[in-house]
Amino acid sequence: MNILVFDCEAYGIEYILWRASDDMVLARGTVTGVGTRSAMLKHQLGAQSLHQLVAEKATCRHAIRWVISTLTDPKVGALGDQSEIGAVGYRVAHGASKYTKPVLITSEVMDDIADFAEFAPTHNPYNLDGIRAARALLPGIPHVAVFDTSYYQTLEPKAYLYGLPYKYYSQHGVRKYGFHGPSHRYAAERACFLSGIPFSEARVVSMHLGRGSSVTATRAGKCVETSMGFSPLEGLVMETRCGDIDPEAVIHIMAKEELTLRTLSDVLHRRSGVLGLSGLGDFGEVVNEAKGGNERAKNALDLFVHSIRKYLGAYILELGGADIIVFTAFMAEGYPVVRQMVCEDLEFLGVKLDEEVNASVEYAEGEISARDSKVKVYTIPHNEELIIAQRVYQHLS
Amino acid sequence: MNILVFDCEAYGIEYILWRASDDMVLARGTVTGVGTRSAMLKHQLGAQSLHQLVAEKATCRHAIRWVISTLTDPKVGALGDQSEIGAVGYRVAHGASKYTKPVLITSEVMDDIADFAEFAPTHNPYNLDGIRAARALLPGIPHVAVFDTSYYQTLEPKAYLYGLPYKYYSQHGVRKYGFHGPSHRYAAERACFLSGIPFSEARVVSMHLGRGSSVTATRAGKCVETSMGFSPLEGLVMETRCGDIDPEAVIHIMAKEELTLRTLSDVLHRRSGVLGLSGLGDFGEVVNEAKGGNERAKNALDLFVHSIRKYLGAYILELGGADIIVFTAFMAEGYPVVRQMVCEDLEFLGVKLDEEVNASVEYAEGEISARDSKVKVYTIPHNEELIIAQRVYQHLS
Repeated sequence: MNILVFDCEAYGIEYILWRASDDMVLARGTVTGVGTRSAMLKHQLGAQSLHQLVAEKATCRHAIRWVISTLTDPKVGALGDQSEIGAVGYRVAHGASKYTKPVLITSEVMDDIADFAEFAPTHNPYNLDGIRAARALLPGIPHVAVFDTSYYQTLEPKAYLYGLPYKYYSQHGVRKYGFHGPSHRYAAERACFLSGIPFSEARVVSMHLGRGSSVTATRAGKCVETSMGFSPLEGLVMETRCGDIDPEAVIHIMAKEELTLRTLSDVLHRRSGVLGLSGLGDFGEVVNEAKGGNERAKNALDLFVHSIRKYLGAYILELGGADIIVFTAFMAEGYPVVRQMVCEDLEFLGVKLDEEVNASVEYAEGEISARDSKVKVYTIPHNEELIIAQRVYQHLS
Repeated sequence: MNILVFDCEAYGIEYILWRASDDMVLARGTVTGVGTRSAMLKHQLGAQSLHQLVAEKATCRHAIRWVISTLTDPKVGALGDQSEIGAVGYRVAHGASKYTKPVLITSEVMDDIADFAEFAPTHNPYNLDGIRAARALLPGIPHVAVFDTSYYQTLEPKAYLYGLPYKYYSQHGVRKYGFHGPSHRYAAERACFLSGIPFSEARVVSMHLGRGSSVTATRAGKCVETSMGFSPLEGLVMETRCGDIDPEAVIHIMAKEELTLRTLSDVLHRRSGVLGLSGLGDFGEVVNEAKGGNERAKNALDLFVHSIRKYLGAYILELGGADIIVFTAFMAEGYPVVRQMVCEDLEFLGVKLDEEVNASVEYAEGEISARDSKVKVYTIPHNEELIIAQRVYQHLS
């Protein structure tokens, strides 16, 4: 069976086509600029071929149709016909407490995903757009949702409750849910495989440093801590999200700037974080400017790393020590300096990078710890779509 | 010179009378229930004598007059006449970035304290009430403010900035300030003195676990990290304050419950935390009920301890290891079980309690670590008023 996986976000779409029989990714790609006049598809066939196209303004539905036609294109496609797609999997950010595992998408499930948008207003609506479009374009096959939140079903109350009046939890579902579940799981399992320590025994701190960023602690195959919470806004300082801030500061800003709740949410999600603080346009620019002596850029980069280190320290304490630290997603994969800053001066905790090796690994898989490091450190290209495809297949088998 | 120190809070007043010539606390006490019909004064003369009174409804001014007349009472007082008071010192929560050391109170300073109430709405107004009352009752002598925030002037940008648009920092002063400065400083210095490690060299994690609770990291006499932030609401889960929560949860609650900003702030400050989550009336009840198997009480206590451990881990990492851990304020001083839970399973970080000794120390000073613990652990009765008196004297000398 071939399974097509979509991760539909505000900024674009990621997809893979995976063949179950030999656990092979046949093709993968992205569509960026969805909803703008400069949508672009990057399509990769097997490990080698790369194909780019630019199109006119594309809605989510246009983009998905485009992906399907590319997959069945005689030159760059991997399939003879779209009937060779056996099932479609979707990354869905928020499944609340209801969805603890993959689920066949029905209209009830779609209603729930729409309802849970109140917990993840910047994610669930885009996830749902993708589901609606692909269900219409690929009828008659199973469509399965895999939730970011379901990896976190093993959190204990102390790790998911907030210090709020009990009724906010019992009536409004205000608790930590956690996100990036498939990505943390993939990175943690893959690092365990490379280290030779069984996933079912290891103490792992995994760091997903992408547009959204989070740190998760896994002990003996079960997630015990995660930095994102009720929504994907809490925790680390991110690219444009604020992460942890004083709740009173939220109130203060709202009053001072006379913001509506909607505008406030938009500011905290899209105009804050490393870019909001530095005033720069992308993370690479922040790293370069910081190196060049731009003080606001340096402060923003330092703050980003500092926020990661706080969670790293907290989770190492909670795990009673770590066996493995693993980095994934673009800010970690593409920026050795970030990994180096995160791991600086941690020899007293058994963490020591091989600085030369670390500097040489970009967007690739590798062990970056020194030979005498007690804690093994890896960087792993993020591949949540693969684990989503595998989980969809398990669910249907 | 005799210096009278007031710490005026929403729930009441703490005071000490300190003699500079021999660094002696002559008397100390509290007035609780200010503004109610059951105000009570507990007055302690020297180390021994204790005196209690109950009065009719008392404003802050009544309470302060009552303290002064008690201090000059022929039986229980320490002074012949109020002219023997040479200066008055005040704990003031928020001095923003302006007040980095003690300051003689002028009308300009009082205006600033009123202005900074927007950062600390549940503290600065009560601090100011006390200043106004005592200045009127004790004219002609210096009145000096000592700010909670001034210990934190050594924080680096990475420790005080938030991942927010830069203008919120530059225009609205939204940054971490930190609180409980005098208490952390007293506890850290005292623990260093007891350990024989100079304060100017030690790496100390201090935990002030009172109505408001915070954790602070000090390296070589300089504060490098603290858990409270823009206001005294951030950080640990506290008695009735929420501590760290997802900013999106703040927005969600406000929308769901249709709260005004004022009511929301009140909920997060006064109806949240350990008591809000457990539904119980005081911290002792929570500890007892948790022991007795009440699940909500157990969850609330676990969450409280868990929030402390997260900061402990983060700060040990940041300090590169700790030499000293010190506990202060009532939840730590009076509850050995809290100290024991915080330090559980930390031998891999060099922290090991002497459980028997720990269990025996309540509201007293003592080392509670085992002989073979690399990290020395202390419990120290909180005494911020003493350090305020000393700092006032230094300022006037």
